[in-house]
Amino acid sequence: MTDTTIRIAVDAMGGDNVPGVLVEGSTAAVRKYPDIEVTLVGNEKIVQDYIDQLRSREASGEKHTSTGKTDWSRIHIAHAEEVIDMCDAPARAIRTKKAASIVVANKLCRSGDVDAVISAGNTGAAMAASLLYMGRLQGVSRPAIMTLFPSVKGVVAVLDLGANTDCKPEHLYQFAVMASVFVSHVVGNKNPRVGLLNNGEERSKGNELTVGAYDLLEKSELNFIGNVEGRDIFKGTADVVVCDGFVGNVLLKFGESVFGFITYSIRKNIMKSIWRKIGAYLLKPVFREIKAEMSPEEYGGAPLLGVDGVSIICHGNSSDVAIMNAIRVARRLVVDKVNDQIKSELANKNMGKK
Amino acid sequence: MTDTTIRIAVDAMGGDNVPGVLVEGSTAAVRKYPDIEVTLVGNEKIVQDYIDQLRSREASGEKHTSTGKTDWSRIHIAHAEEVIDMCDAPARAIRTKKAASIVVANKLCRSGDVDAVISAGNTGAAMAASLLYMGRLQGVSRPAIMTLFPSVKGVVAVLDLGANTDCKPEHLYQFAVMASVFVSHVVGNKNPRVGLLNNGEERSKGNELTVGAYDLLEKSELNFIGNVEGRDIFKGTADVVVCDGFVGNVLLKFGESVFGFITYSIRKNIMKSIWRKIGAYLLKPVFREIKAEMSPEEYGGAPLLGVDGVSIICHGNSSDVAIMNAIRVARRLVVDKVNDQIKSELANKNMGKK
Repeated sequence: MTDTTIRIAVDAMGGDNVPGVLVEGSTAAVRKYPDIEVTLVGNEKIVQDYIDQLRSREASGEKHTSTGKTDWSRIHIAHAEEVIDMCDAPARAIRTKKAASIVVANKLCRSGDVDAVISAGNTGAAMAASLLYMGRLQGVSRPAIMTLFPSVKGVVAVLDLGANTDCKPEHLYQFAVMASVFVSHVVGNKNPRVGLLNNGEERSKGNELTVGAYDLLEKSELNFIGNVEGRDIFKGTADVVVCDGFVGNVLLKFGESVFGFITYSIRKNIMKSIWRKIGAYLLKPVFREIKAEMSPEEYGGAPLLGVDGVSIICHGNSSDVAIMNAIRVARRLVVDKVNDQIKSELANKNMGKK
Repeated sequence: MTDTTIRIAVDAMGGDNVPGVLVEGSTAAVRKYPDIEVTLVGNEKIVQDYIDQLRSREASGEKHTSTGKTDWSRIHIAHAEEVIDMCDAPARAIRTKKAASIVVANKLCRSGDVDAVISAGNTGAAMAASLLYMGRLQGVSRPAIMTLFPSVKGVVAVLDLGANTDCKPEHLYQFAVMASVFVSHVVGNKNPRVGLLNNGEERSKGNELTVGAYDLLEKSELNFIGNVEGRDIFKGTADVVVCDGFVGNVLLKFGESVFGFITYSIRKNIMKSIWRKIGAYLLKPVFREIKAEMSPEEYGGAPLLGVDGVSIICHGNSSDVAIMNAIRVARRLVVDKVNDQIKSELANKNMGKK
């Protein structure tokens, strides 16, 4: 391990397909990025068994989806006795299950043994564990969950998606700073347009929160383009869209259900004729592609921005590709020292601090 | 005109296709419902010219989409000198343009000359005019805009969609009462399940507003099923979903943009092969049907519930069918005395009153 090695902990026990997709996503990332090491956190025997299977498949010449041989010396295991289930109450679970994989993973980050944590388990528990063990980044009042939505003009970073249900204007300003730094480094858009999610475009529109946030954003050095509406997300009017975690959470979950509803409607309506059925058959690959495009995890999960570390939260049903993408994003955040930039951006401005 | 005649004012100058769709939607409704009279409000000459055209087309034997001959004696014109444009600032416009069609239409309701007002013009102006001239219904603190979303289990009434950006728990309770009465009469679902839009299903979830509203809804005699999430709307988990107007507005506009984004994605992805293009061609009618299904106005516009009158606000790009549907809903609200029932529901309960 060199000084520039990026060390990433992956919760191997959290998610719908454990430890399979976590181990496979991690080994794919290790093959792709020579500068990373992954620590799989979970039941040692279960994880080791899966690794052994993969190793013997690789030894027997089975092809990976990604190229190259795995450097197994860069894959480690940290044993964790317990697991936090999807149905566990987050705050309680991280207090009572101190030996749970997600808790152990976050403790590794706190002690400096790893630089980042990836989890596809209980979202609330992952968030609570990172908040507790990584702590807040200097200058940030409220860490926020962010994800990338697709749009006709490329991806749009939307936050907060549920970490903070009641927000103040300065929180929305901080979200905008954090997401702008993220987009600039991870998406590669150096001057992201920031929009304030509102119920109208006019400056006077909004509730107490957005009216206050408008003033702060306008005075900032961010590339603030004003209010944006619900329809502007898919239109790609802004590159960063800020809102409180209540609105963001409702929007995210509504958005996640859209594709399923459209698929349901198509199924219902194609039964009316054989030609429609043929049309649907021919369009199947298109629907698959759109489904993938509309799945935020394909862009690398949802980072919890504003914690003093890197924490990326993935969907429970993430694929190995999604896990690899999350590791890719985590690596980028560590390599580019994105947290240092967020700190310095917030420190430079005499505003938005609580 | 008999005692049981339902008199409906239609703003003939508001919307993208004036006065065409308004006049045609109104005449279709007059042919369908023998107990209604429609007053078209707008520039007398323009409206009369359009009516004359329609009459001569009908006289020459041209078939209507709906059956029967129009009883022209049940179609009236009320002259209005001015028009409020889509870009006019609502509150200011209704004060300065006293002779605007939407103002005149609402004044006709105030004076008792009509029972209901339909508008497809500037939404904010229509809302402001109804609030000002109809006034609030006894027991209602805040009138709210409602619409019906499609779901896999039938339509779902969602409110508020933008009339009130900052709400209190009792407002959400009142929204639930109003929408339950609406759904029971217009949709025909006698015991609608009421859901509180929240950022999680657990009782403890939410912001200050929803935590307070949960208590009120739970104590009420409504069929309250607890918190619902963004994904529950298309799932049809509840028949009535209440939220503040900020969240509802963001959701409505996001939802309106969904179909366009999916269409864009399909167009982009079918270019990859001729088979995909053929598939898309065969599925064209399916997409048309889904688009219609996802257009709230097909269910009869968005009623402003809680005003002392009936006010239905339609999309600017409403079709004649959408206008006819709005008149159908307005007629039902008047015939069933839905406002009296809302008043009595709110009066019977010793709660939710401000």
